[in-house]
Amino acid sequence: MAEKGLFIDALRRDGLVTFLALVKDKALRPKRTGGWYLYLLLSDRTGEIEAKAWDQPQQTATLFERNDIVKVRGTIELYNDHPQLIVQRIRRCEVGEFEETDFCPTSARDREEMLRELQGFVDSVGNNHLRALLQSILNDPLVATAIKVAPGGVRLHHPCRGGLLEHVTSVCNLAEKIIEHYPRLNRDWLIAGAVLHDIGKVEELGTSRRLSYTTRGQLVGHVALGLEILERHVARLEEFPVEIKSMLQHFIVSHHGEIDKGALRRPVSPEAILLHYMDEVDARLEQAWRLIDQGPAGEEWTAYAPSLERQLYRWCPLAQEVDAR
Amino acid sequence: MAEKGLFIDALRRDGLVTFLALVKDKALRPKRTGGWYLYLLLSDRTGEIEAKAWDQPQQTATLFERNDIVKVRGTIELYNDHPQLIVQRIRRCEVGEFEETDFCPTSARDREEMLRELQGFVDSVGNNHLRALLQSILNDPLVATAIKVAPGGVRLHHPCRGGLLEHVTSVCNLAEKIIEHYPRLNRDWLIAGAVLHDIGKVEELGTSRRLSYTTRGQLVGHVALGLEILERHVARLEEFPVEIKSMLQHFIVSHHGEIDKGALRRPVSPEAILLHYMDEVDARLEQAWRLIDQGPAGEEWTAYAPSLERQLYRWCPLAQEVDAR
Amino acid sequence: MAEKGLFIDALRRDGLVTFLALVKDKALRPKRTGGWYLYLLLSDRTGEIEAKAWDQPQQTATLFERNDIVKVRGTIELYNDHPQLIVQRIRRCEVGEFEETDFCPTSARDREEMLRELQGFVDSVGNNHLRALLQSILNDPLVATAIKVAPGGVRLHHPCRGGLLEHVTSVCNLAEKIIEHYPRLNRDWLIAGAVLHDIGKVEELGTSRRLSYTTRGQLVGHVALGLEILERHVARLEEFPVEIKSMLQHFIVSHHGEIDKGALRRPVSPEAILLHYMDEVDARLEQAWRLIDQGPAGEEWTAYAPSLERQLYRWCPLAQEVDAR
Amino acid sequence: MAEKGLFIDALRRDGLVTFLALVKDKALRPKRTGGWYLYLLLSDRTGEIEAKAWDQPQQTATLFERNDIVKVRGTIELYNDHPQLIVQRIRRCEVGEFEETDFCPTSARDREEMLRELQGFVDSVGNNHLRALLQSILNDPLVATAIKVAPGGVRLHHPCRGGLLEHVTSVCNLAEKIIEHYPRLNRDWLIAGAVLHDIGKVEELGTSRRLSYTTRGQLVGHVALGLEILERHVARLEEFPVEIKSMLQHFIVSHHGEIDKGALRRPVSPEAILLHYMDEVDARLEQAWRLIDQGPAGEEWTAYAPSLERQLYRWCPLAQEVDAR
Amino acid sequence: MAEKGLFIDALRRDGLVTFLALVKDKALRPKRTGGWYLYLLLSDRTGEIEAKAWDQPQQTATLFERNDIVKVRGTIELYNDHPQLIVQRIRRCEVGEFEETDFCPTSARDREEMLRELQGFVDSVGNNHLRALLQSILNDPLVATAIKVAPGGVRLHHPCRGGLLEHVTSVCNLAEKIIEHYPRLNRDWLIAGAVLHDIGKVEELGTSRRLSYTTRGQLVGHVALGLEILERHVARLEEFPVEIKSMLQHFIVSHHGEIDKGALRRPVSPEAILLHYMDEVDARLEQAWRLIDQGPAGEEWTAYAPSLERQLYRWCPLAQEVDAR
Amino acid sequence: MAEKGLFIDALRRDGLVTFLALVKDKALRPKRTGGWYLYLLLSDRTGEIEAKAWDQPQQTATLFERNDIVKVRGTIELYNDHPQLIVQRIRRCEVGEFEETDFCPTSARDREEMLRELQGFVDSVGNNHLRALLQSILNDPLVATAIKVAPGGVRLHHPCRGGLLEHVTSVCNLAEKIIEHYPRLNRDWLIAGAVLHDIGKVEELGTSRRLSYTTRGQLVGHVALGLEILERHVARLEEFPVEIKSMLQHFIVSHHGEIDKGALRRPVSPEAILLHYMDEVDARLEQAWRLIDQGPAGEEWTAYAPSLERQLYRWCPLAQEVDAR
Repeated sequence: MAEKGLFIDALRRDGLVTFLALVKDKALRPKRTGGWYLYLLLSDRTGEIEAKAWDQPQQTATLFERNDIVKVRGTIELYNDHPQLIVQRIRRCEVGEFEETDFCPTSARDREEMLRELQGFVDSVGNNHLRALLQSILNDPLVATAIKVAPGGVRLHHPCRGGLLEHVTSVCNLAEKIIEHYPRLNRDWLIAGAVLHDIGKVEELGTSRRLSYTTRGQLVGHVALGLEILERHVARLEEFPVEIKSMLQHFIVSHHGEIDKGALRRPVSPEAILLHYMDEVDARLEQAWRLIDQGPAGEEWTAYAPSLERQLYRWCPLAQEVDAR
Repeated sequence: MAEKGLFIDALRRDGLVTFLALVKDKALRPKRTGGWYLYLLLSDRTGEIEAKAWDQPQQTATLFERNDIVKVRGTIELYNDHPQLIVQRIRRCEVGEFEETDFCPTSARDREEMLRELQGFVDSVGNNHLRALLQSILNDPLVATAIKVAPGGVRLHHPCRGGLLEHVTSVCNLAEKIIEHYPRLNRDWLIAGAVLHDIGKVEELGTSRRLSYTTRGQLVGHVALGLEILERHVARLEEFPVEIKSMLQHFIVSHHGEIDKGALRRPVSPEAILLHYMDEVDARLEQAWRLIDQGPAGEEWTAYAPSLERQLYRWCPLAQEVDAR
Repeated sequence: MAEKGLFIDALRRDGLVTFLALVKDKALRPKRTGGWYLYLLLSDRTGEIEAKAWDQPQQTATLFERNDIVKVRGTIELYNDHPQLIVQRIRRCEVGEFEETDFCPTSARDREEMLRELQGFVDSVGNNHLRALLQSILNDPLVATAIKVAPGGVRLHHPCRGGLLEHVTSVCNLAEKIIEHYPRLNRDWLIAGAVLHDIGKVEELGTSRRLSYTTRGQLVGHVALGLEILERHVARLEEFPVEIKSMLQHFIVSHHGEIDKGALRRPVSPEAILLHYMDEVDARLEQAWRLIDQGPAGEEWTAYAPSLERQLYRWCPLAQEVDAR
Repeated sequence: MAEKGLFIDALRRDGLVTFLALVKDKALRPKRTGGWYLYLLLSDRTGEIEAKAWDQPQQTATLFERNDIVKVRGTIELYNDHPQLIVQRIRRCEVGEFEETDFCPTSARDREEMLRELQGFVDSVGNNHLRALLQSILNDPLVATAIKVAPGGVRLHHPCRGGLLEHVTSVCNLAEKIIEHYPRLNRDWLIAGAVLHDIGKVEELGTSRRLSYTTRGQLVGHVALGLEILERHVARLEEFPVEIKSMLQHFIVSHHGEIDKGALRRPVSPEAILLHYMDEVDARLEQAWRLIDQGPAGEEWTAYAPSLERQLYRWCPLAQEVDAR
Repeated sequence: MAEKGLFIDALRRDGLVTFLALVKDKALRPKRTGGWYLYLLLSDRTGEIEAKAWDQPQQTATLFERNDIVKVRGTIELYNDHPQLIVQRIRRCEVGEFEETDFCPTSARDREEMLRELQGFVDSVGNNHLRALLQSILNDPLVATAIKVAPGGVRLHHPCRGGLLEHVTSVCNLAEKIIEHYPRLNRDWLIAGAVLHDIGKVEELGTSRRLSYTTRGQLVGHVALGLEILERHVARLEEFPVEIKSMLQHFIVSHHGEIDKGALRRPVSPEAILLHYMDEVDARLEQAWRLIDQGPAGEEWTAYAPSLERQLYRWCPLAQEVDAR
Repeated sequence: MAEKGLFIDALRRDGLVTFLALVKDKALRPKRTGGWYLYLLLSDRTGEIEAKAWDQPQQTATLFERNDIVKVRGTIELYNDHPQLIVQRIRRCEVGEFEETDFCPTSARDREEMLRELQGFVDSVGNNHLRALLQSILNDPLVATAIKVAPGGVRLHHPCRGGLLEHVTSVCNLAEKIIEHYPRLNRDWLIAGAVLHDIGKVEELGTSRRLSYTTRGQLVGHVALGLEILERHVARLEEFPVEIKSMLQHFIVSHHGEIDKGALRRPVSPEAILLHYMDEVDARLEQAWRLIDQGPAGEEWTAYAPSLERQLYRWCPLAQEVDAR
């Protein structure tokens, strides 16, 4: 494995540097004096730096793509008070030359293990139609590949490689616990809802190391993309009951809970109602703990989180200390 | 063709009557004295009447279904000040024995003619992929049968047999006119959007003479059902470009315009934006003229329309009269 | 124990009847001919009937109060097509003469058992301050008496005698399960939040057999009444840490989740966030299953529930049947 | 005609420059060392630059006003990393010395031609009262002068000199087309509504080269200013029927469609309903194409447009290319 | 003055009756047996009764109009359990034959006295332009006649003859008091705002004894009608400063406070801000005391008031009693 | 009294400076080279400056706390184009060494005088229970100390030392005036509501010279903190009527007027309704005049005020000038 070299936030502001980085953006831009230069936005998990390649920009641009990891050598200069890298050499890195976690946030759980756990839930579904359908979807190469890297969201919850898988698995486990308290709930519906509600995110958010929407994701969203995946696999199964398909579609279109939050229908069954709340609980808790952990040390409050319209309180877990006084 | 007999609003309040009616509801109910009677809700375009069959209710109940047209004979009695029919004889009518328009509101335009007109629009689409897809959908037996009877809505707009077809055809024609003013618009997209945006209503509202939601319609809605129809036909065509599919999906998920009005995405292209407004214009104008025509005669204002949160003003078209004074 | 006599929905429309009923309303009203009569609204779990006592109304009115159970004898007459009871004899029943469940909906769980369960949760709290406070509140005679009869709500969720206790105990049990999945959660906070979030309902909804708001409940609401109970008991404990009090107050003022839903603050800790969702989940599931069980038999959908802005789908639990076809 | 000189985005960052510019702001400001200097904000269609005149600031300030075009000579310096112009000479330019389009965005259509087109629509109105009123308004010198330069909006739609005229004329043409599809519509009402709905913008946005609100515009808005213009001209005509005036007032007060969008009344006639949608369609399409044309080249998506709460998709018109693959 | 005769709520349900009533509705309706009858809706301040005239309906219909007071003789019959009057004789009453307050709610304050008080406020305005304008408006015969009878609203506040005058005068007096506390406020602006903010209601609600909207009121509303009155009188005054007109227009268009409450602009000056709150305070207090006074006697709470989304508490003024215990 | 020294906005950008400042923030931060430095944020009423102490940071940090006034000597350097102070000497100042108004905005009214005025209002309350309660609260040392320094808000209204007291006293005076116009109002309730509605702000915003929320304020808010203070003092009084307590609690929980504005209940009595509007009027007028007075000089409009969603118009008070032309 190649050396990562310095992380971006530790680059010396002068002298020659060599390091690995993710290509977040790449464009040919006109020089004031005529001709072109190659503009790059490079990043790792510690930050970003703009870079320019003045020599043979068009040829250099063919060596790698957005989203690739590259090994780059150059010098740091100040431009309008901002550091930028003047590229001398750059090449694409192969898988094996780098640690993915150096370049983008990645789920703390092992992704292969999570996938096995998810398959276990699917295999445990009692209804034959449902189980066959869920297995078909998880075995779909497109889904199987993507679910290991897709994030749960761009910013709000589980914004990391494997975040979607972490979220889905967590909701399955949560369902398992909640059923123990409300035995009237139907376990098959809940597992199916947990697996399918966000499945469209494998296309909406995709597999890019940059957390961002794909074009299809921005045009139609994960609800419609999830419906598409469902329809494709139902079509492959024989005599799949339309009543079951309808209920699965209902889970997908209702899991945002309210019309103005992006649901096409409000949840109409106990399982659909619970699915919505489990999705919320798992997303909000992950977000809360992440913000709290990021939080500036020594402060009672996190920074203001616009999506939550609040700051979070960081002291709570320490109730014991009060008691011990 | 059988005689309709009296319309429900003209039934004499005493004596023996014979007439044809639509069965809106049918149920076996317990008698106070034990045993069962057959409860019916009968209707025609002038009103509704409750009916009871005391003799052999279970056997009678097998003779016809909800949504059938029946010929019924009986006597009218008052019960809690409301007239009800005591059934003596009842039988199912066959197609040909009755005029459908006697029993449920029906589009004023000829449905075969509208369908030919719609097919003409589809055939005129220039893009081969788009044209093939639209033809495939219109030739789908399920769609072809249902589109001739499905309404545009239960109450709001085009609430009549054939109303969906009338709305879709009208939006195609409207698009044709608006393109003349804005030539930059892409005609293929607009025709495709006009044909597909509400296509899920063939399953959401279905083919029943009673205007109502189907179970699938209530569970998943016409947006998701339209996406399902689209996906089914795209799967049948070879090498259908995913970019075109995405845009068609976008038309379907965005045609309600705003998230809190039931759109999954806001319209992002000029054609998608216009499609939303054409849908609104055609629905609102149909609704407005229908309310205005319903009277009451001699009044300046219609009754209050809750869905519009207003009364409509009935005098406007008479501007000429003012001028002539 | 006295005989209940006929239930109100089974009263014969003529002849003399004797039965037990709850007095929902009581008023002296002027007779057209001068003088007064006693107006009553009587009910049991099957319905309501208006009653009039023409003889010695003022004296009769002193024999019982609103919310009492009475034994009444009289005749049924029709007035404006509605049955009413002309009272001949009426007297107050003592506890022991009647089954409370005949007159108002009552929790299906045994209330003493639920209370013991709740006390068990309280006793298991690890933090000494928290445990002492919760014990103090549960031992408060006002709270201890009321919590066994107060409902969870007038209409929306747990609208029955003991409904509040059922809801609170259920949320404690739910918390226990969810902690198993998210071990980072603080159990003490969750149990305290579960016990306290709705405690003000013992004064807001009170102990009346009629499910209704008290005057204090209508003026200040259960959030403020819960804060009052909390403050009263904190004042009784020595050196109760203000940090713990603040967090408990936060649970009470934030448990409705959003400002426009009646929260004074949005939840700012993981436990406060989860408490809101557990409250929602338990309330919504109870409401959903109750509506589903109320029928109507044979229908796929419940009646429209205005507070949920939807009908609920009754078929879901039967997924197995589809599979078995 | 004078030379424009360099455009602001091409000014050399050093040396002496001479160019023409619009005065967007002008103020005397205190020098740290006592006395005053003249602060200017200069602009052309390519950008803005701050300028300072140190010599004889008060006298210089009298030579021109905000909104004038000036010819200026000076040197560029850096101040806090921002370029600023140190003025050596400056004088007001007369009409004829410059091309207006160099300094502010201007409608692409010829304004005289649009005005003739609009007059043609007005002359074609059949109702004598309506036609006379519209002619009176268009002949009002205040209106006639302003309508040739007023924009359609400051930022949202038609934000350019002549933009209002372009919008109004376009809505007239659009109405003409839509009437062909819905012949029941009254053409006179639609033309009158198209001409009058935004007429108050001639005072709200005014004639300044800087797109901005006038004081009256900010205080009372174009709806009230439009009503004022209407009232002034109705008063000049003999026996103008109050029924027609009321309907025209209704068009003005209802054209924003919904109360929370700035309508005083919701549209109550088919023509008023359509007017609202035509206004929306024309504004949204102009805005969409403008954003799409602004680039950035090679990108699928425009920048985020806050007023639309979305990015727009730039690829749509190219459907043909997909087909041709 | 004629005798009123019995009030409608005291009419005997049989026998011949003679009384005076307001004609709220009048229509010729078809008889089942052919021909027509005259349908009337008669009312006084105690209630309503439907009436039918079978003899010479067309001729009878010419004798009076909606909104007239009539003297009627006839017999009461029951029809579908509702009493109705069979008319034998009916004639129009002249002013002087009846007391208006017998037929419609009327302000408790003397209307001539209120008008003098209002004129006093207007005469006390210091600014010559403002004073002349307000005097011109109050002397406008249309305004002067209507303001003595127009209500403040149909249902919400001051829904009685003279209610508008009562409201406007009250806001003037309130302003006088509030200025004493905030001397920085400009008294002229406040008096002008108080007089003008609702002046359009003289046309919106009009002079009918039935509290209802006029056609113009429903089409354009009192804000636009107030602007019209203002513009008409400004046009009559010489050299009225446009700055003052703009501010007065601002008061009218901003007095509802928020855009979604019907304001075209939010209030932007201290006086405009205060005007909005004074309007609210005076309307809400009148409404609250009216609801409280309407009873029902002995109840702590009023009936639910939908426009306020609450019940009001009736006990408050009695705080003294608590103290005296 | 010590010299203030230069104000922060007048500090020379080079050379040695000595001045007094408020410590807004204080933190030990790691040096790049290892070890720590002391970071400070210093402010006075003219602005802020960051400061760093490199020598003996830990020891220096013990000399003063956040919110103290310090005397500091050091040199100004530029860092990333921003000036910062390198601290040479720093020490805490004692009361008497500085003028508080040099460091934070302070009410223009004398605070002792306002407090006497408030006590006068309290002493004038007629109801014995109410008067005793209000006196008890004002005599509470915690309240008495804090009310002299607590602000009315952090940004929106009365954001200055003593601002809360200024607001409360002003509302009392306003009530006094409004009662003169509406004599039916109960004065005792209004004075009590004025004194108590915001009393929780003494804990929510606290006594810090930096205007900011305390932790308790952020967790539970001034409504809940006000209820707590009320409950504490009611508990100290004998036989305080629960009906009066309920109404006072109602004033506190309803004074924000609407649920989505932070009220737990909507105001249900005339006095509660008026209290809400008086709170609004006093807050909005203070805010409006403050914004207007802040300039900028010569401009008709203030800067945009996000909390009001508008700019304010600064010209209004000058109506006289128009008249004088």
